[in-house]
Amino acid sequence: MQEKLDQLKAHMARISDLLSAASVLGWDQRTYMPPGGAQARADQVATLSGLAHEFYVDESLGRLLEELEPYLSELDYDSDEASLIRVTRRRYERRTRIPTELVVELSRTTALARQAWSEAREKDDFGFFEPHLSRVVELRIRWAECFAPYENIYDPLLDYFEPGLDYAQIRAVFDGLKPELIALVRAITENRDAVDASVLDKPVPEEAQIAFSRDVSAALGYDYRRGRLDLSAHPFTTSFSPDDVRITTRIDPGNPIKALMSTIHETGHGLHGQNMSPSLYRTGLTQGPSMVVSESQSRFYENVIGRSRPFWRHFYPRLQRAFAPHFDGVEMEAFYRALNKSEPSLIRTAADEVTYGLHIILRFELENDLLNGRVRVADLPEVWNARMEEYLGVVPPTDREGVLQDIHWSQGSFGYFPDYLLGSVFAVQLWEQMKKDLPGVLSEIERGEFGNVLAWQVEHIQKHGRKFTLPELAERATGGPLRPEPYMDYLREKYGELYGL
Amino acid sequence: MQEKLDQLKAHMARISDLLSAASVLGWDQRTYMPPGGAQARADQVATLSGLAHEFYVDESLGRLLEELEPYLSELDYDSDEASLIRVTRRRYERRTRIPTELVVELSRTTALARQAWSEAREKDDFGFFEPHLSRVVELRIRWAECFAPYENIYDPLLDYFEPGLDYAQIRAVFDGLKPELIALVRAITENRDAVDASVLDKPVPEEAQIAFSRDVSAALGYDYRRGRLDLSAHPFTTSFSPDDVRITTRIDPGNPIKALMSTIHETGHGLHGQNMSPSLYRTGLTQGPSMVVSESQSRFYENVIGRSRPFWRHFYPRLQRAFAPHFDGVEMEAFYRALNKSEPSLIRTAADEVTYGLHIILRFELENDLLNGRVRVADLPEVWNARMEEYLGVVPPTDREGVLQDIHWSQGSFGYFPDYLLGSVFAVQLWEQMKKDLPGVLSEIERGEFGNVLAWQVEHIQKHGRKFTLPELAERATGGPLRPEPYMDYLREKYGELYGL
Repeated sequence: MQEKLDQLKAHMARISDLLSAASVLGWDQRTYMPPGGAQARADQVATLSGLAHEFYVDESLGRLLEELEPYLSELDYDSDEASLIRVTRRRYERRTRIPTELVVELSRTTALARQAWSEAREKDDFGFFEPHLSRVVELRIRWAECFAPYENIYDPLLDYFEPGLDYAQIRAVFDGLKPELIALVRAITENRDAVDASVLDKPVPEEAQIAFSRDVSAALGYDYRRGRLDLSAHPFTTSFSPDDVRITTRIDPGNPIKALMSTIHETGHGLHGQNMSPSLYRTGLTQGPSMVVSESQSRFYENVIGRSRPFWRHFYPRLQRAFAPHFDGVEMEAFYRALNKSEPSLIRTAADEVTYGLHIILRFELENDLLNGRVRVADLPEVWNARMEEYLGVVPPTDREGVLQDIHWSQGSFGYFPDYLLGSVFAVQLWEQMKKDLPGVLSEIERGEFGNVLAWQVEHIQKHGRKFTLPELAERATGGPLRPEPYMDYLREKYGELYGL
Repeated sequence: MQEKLDQLKAHMARISDLLSAASVLGWDQRTYMPPGGAQARADQVATLSGLAHEFYVDESLGRLLEELEPYLSELDYDSDEASLIRVTRRRYERRTRIPTELVVELSRTTALARQAWSEAREKDDFGFFEPHLSRVVELRIRWAECFAPYENIYDPLLDYFEPGLDYAQIRAVFDGLKPELIALVRAITENRDAVDASVLDKPVPEEAQIAFSRDVSAALGYDYRRGRLDLSAHPFTTSFSPDDVRITTRIDPGNPIKALMSTIHETGHGLHGQNMSPSLYRTGLTQGPSMVVSESQSRFYENVIGRSRPFWRHFYPRLQRAFAPHFDGVEMEAFYRALNKSEPSLIRTAADEVTYGLHIILRFELENDLLNGRVRVADLPEVWNARMEEYLGVVPPTDREGVLQDIHWSQGSFGYFPDYLLGSVFAVQLWEQMKKDLPGVLSEIERGEFGNVLAWQVEHIQKHGRKFTLPELAERATGGPLRPEPYMDYLREKYGELYGL
């Protein structure tokens, strides 16, 4: 068995190196690559990913996994070895289910659709995008059908981004949230003038913004000997190994809080990457999809911690010094309220903690309707706008600010959106548990001590990499499945107080 | 034939992408990678280079080349297709000559030797390095023996870095240079006070140094939409495609000329990379060794152009403005003389145009002696010091400033050193021809017009990539073989005037 395991590890190490190299190329493309480099970069990444895929569907890998199967019962389920066999087998089976022709056709079709989406958004012309999107939906359905049988054709797509999750589980969580969120948004909207966010509009120089972002991320535990902070048009985190995990941010010269909160979000991802167990390096178990788990870490740091009073009791005087004199006359309480202003708006990525969930539920429901043939692509703009009015009380004046705002569908990424909200839900569920396990955690945060917070996340989530599914992690960390109640309680309490509800 | 050619191109495209990706990883490692990333980076680069090597020695490539062989006579020798078959066959034959065990052993031995060299240099202890170097020499000899028969065991090593060059050719060039260089260095040394370089010691801020370096490289034709200038400990140029070629430089805060001349050197390499024919992209013919040709471009721009009066007639007023007020009182003539000060010194990389050649000839002779068993590794320090005294009139007080100064031998890079000098020699030979072909070139340079200079280099050298060998390029560009006379005439005239000889 040891020999077979070693062969499996060597095989996965090669795949892991190829994918890590592709990630370095992706990081470079989004940070420093000169414009002329785009064509060659596409070729290079296609070659690296293509080779990784070839190695993933290689028959020799299938044989190895089959030969290791009988030993699985002898191994501890939690061990790296058992996890490696279990997770790799799952990925191998999924990858080999899809005919190569379909992979190629989907890749070609989405490349064109992404281009068409970009033009359609530019011109605010959904009709231009429609035939492309129809083709993508059609191919995605064929893709999902490769995984029959299933309860809902949406299930294989959901499972793709977060292994172990299906429509019924998510529906149960979202059904708990939806009416409560709609009610909370309405109450806040009626009281909208209770919070003024304009105190955050200050022209802080770029260097000061970057320096403070760096200080805060380091204080949270992000290790700059094994990471970097750079600028990019869309902030992201990427990992080449647990010892080289990089984050980026984006500067708004008129509002220093945007770059800061974006940095704290990516710091959550960065800590996750840096604290995966070194024993998982080059096994593939530090890579691959697990969207909800990833988002639980970024949203925990950005929202649960980073938008809380204890956090700012420590950091606000430091922010005042770093951004002096801009916040000299601003009380911490006014700052805290501004940071948490909630207001229905059109664009998902700019939405606050409360309204964000409804943007997601709308997309989740629409995706499911599309894939099950209950909504036609041509009718999307109309349905979108009607639901925006129903859920958030606002109607996009253009499709550009409506159904055309997100890139995801043009890439065929159906099943991705719900994970953003589930990440927030899971983040709060973890927070509830953490407060029970660490009774002094609030005062630690007030003192700027983040070591125990991080150690808890490392122990329960981060170190495991991709060894366990989300349901497994939820069970291990909190003793039960993913639940909407802690999240809803958290929002009601926090925003009830802020808006005097 | 077309089908086979397409197969060959597809095979080479994959190798080319892997090598380009490895170059991106190398660039990142030397510019922005956090210290923690080193271990994973070594794994990733090893996997990419290993895969590229596997594809290079793949039997299917051998079969393709054999099947294409009969068509070679039908194709124009200069065509991309004929060159692709010719050059790839040569590389395939060389790669498949070396047993894999030897490749692996050499790689492992040089990794340890590089580490030992670094420690030995630190401690100034040649004895610590000696057993490692002995082992490297032994393995390099076994490597060279794979290419028997040859006139000199040094030949396969020389050919490795510059295909088409052998010991006899280089010996002929160096025999022409050596006595003349020794005589010139002696004459300059006797007159050493004729030139004062201290006017260059000015504390110019880093930003101003980078900005001026950027302006000069752009004026020479380096395209920043398809390139970048970054900082690194050792300046280098790297290419991921003709549309993404990056250069780096190093700042000395006390002397702004060092970063500038280093940038101009790398700009020569950068122009070479950016102007290879787009038709060679992904064929492997923009990659691979051709050290002398590469160095001819960098040294042409750095020395022949960048240390000349016409160049500075244009740029000196601009430098005075860019670095104001530091050069306000310095006459251009004093600046020009300082820039060209020649003086025997211990360290090759800091040597000037005249003394540089003798540093190289010393290494060339020692390498040949080592490989042919005429000098033992243990005797290197003594022989080194004796020859330094004989050629340059200076003796290193420590081995760190003597035989331990260069990394090359620890990496097994025997046969690399002569190409630095041959690059300078070829640069001047090209310059002689350029002046004949472009009678107005000197006044163009004085006016800051570099378009025709670049166009000439593109037409005769740069666009061809790796299609032709150095002897072929020399014949095509100058009508004859590589010759030492133009270089020696150039040095005698320039330095005779500077030192009143």
